[in-house]
Amino acid sequence: MIVLGIDPGLATLGWGVIESERGRQRLVDYSCILTTPQQSFPDRLKQIGEDMRRLLLTYKPDEIAFEELFFAKNVTTALTVGAARGVAIAACAAYTNQLYEYTPMQVKQAIVGYGKAEKQQIQQMVKLLLHMDHIAKPDDAADAIAIALTHAAAGPARVQFRMK
Amino acid sequence: MIVLGIDPGLATLGWGVIESERGRQRLVDYSCILTTPQQSFPDRLKQIGEDMRRLLLTYKPDEIAFEELFFAKNVTTALTVGAARGVAIAACAAYTNQLYEYTPMQVKQAIVGYGKAEKQQIQQMVKLLLHMDHIAKPDDAADAIAIALTHAAAGPARVQFRMK
Repeated sequence: MIVLGIDPGLATLGWGVIESERGRQRLVDYSCILTTPQQSFPDRLKQIGEDMRRLLLTYKPDEIAFEELFFAKNVTTALTVGAARGVAIAACAAYTNQLYEYTPMQVKQAIVGYGKAEKQQIQQMVKLLLHMDHIAKPDDAADAIAIALTHAAAGPARVQFRMK
Repeated sequence: MIVLGIDPGLATLGWGVIESERGRQRLVDYSCILTTPQQSFPDRLKQIGEDMRRLLLTYKPDEIAFEELFFAKNVTTALTVGAARGVAIAACAAYTNQLYEYTPMQVKQAIVGYGKAEKQQIQQMVKLLLHMDHIAKPDDAADAIAIALTHAAAGPARVQFRMK
């Protein structure tokens, strides 16, 4: 099973693809979709949609896991991050209904076994679990891989998107 | 020139299409894209994207005006409304780069001539300006028509989306 993990954002949307078979996970690829403040807001959103669709066609994930957002610095940030996340979710929903979401605490619990783990602990464990020779950069891509791993480990506890 | 006005939301996205020629405006059509809490969040976003694309193909607007959002009840609402608005903007950006936005105060100023006008005053003026025999319902559709009228009246003061 191919799992795509997504850590959404407007400037940086991290993604990670893993293959999960019989309890073993293998890293396939990871990177970020980047947009810049030199682009208009509509153009940034359009690009995120296009790049997401390209990603789905390239890696053909069976299941997709998002980081669940329920906070932001302020309402303005929430509108902006929410827009980027919305565009990514809509692109994925047009591709599959196998969409899941996990809170940052669920990710920490799954990867490190401790819901308040530090970011560095997550990154070290991701490196260890996937036999990587260095820590994934940038942080958003490392987070996306952690979300994919969390989904692969969740088994029957998998969380489909809630109604909102 | 065909102008599409959009008042974005997750449950109700209002839209209004007007034709504007030599300072005269004619109502073409208006309605809402509706989604329900019985749908999953990804499914609601997917539907908004699909319905927006259908709308663009049907009415082929030359220019599109959005209500500018910069507030929301709280961060959770902002993430949700921001997602719906983001999906609608991305669909429009894939269709044209003629995208504009106006604050509620700019709409009130343009339609009633008073930045703190009541919602009912806006609706009455929209009815009057477009020779409608009743007030447009629901409110979100009436707001969307008002946004389209604001854009048609803006002339050189037209506001493209700002960088964000």
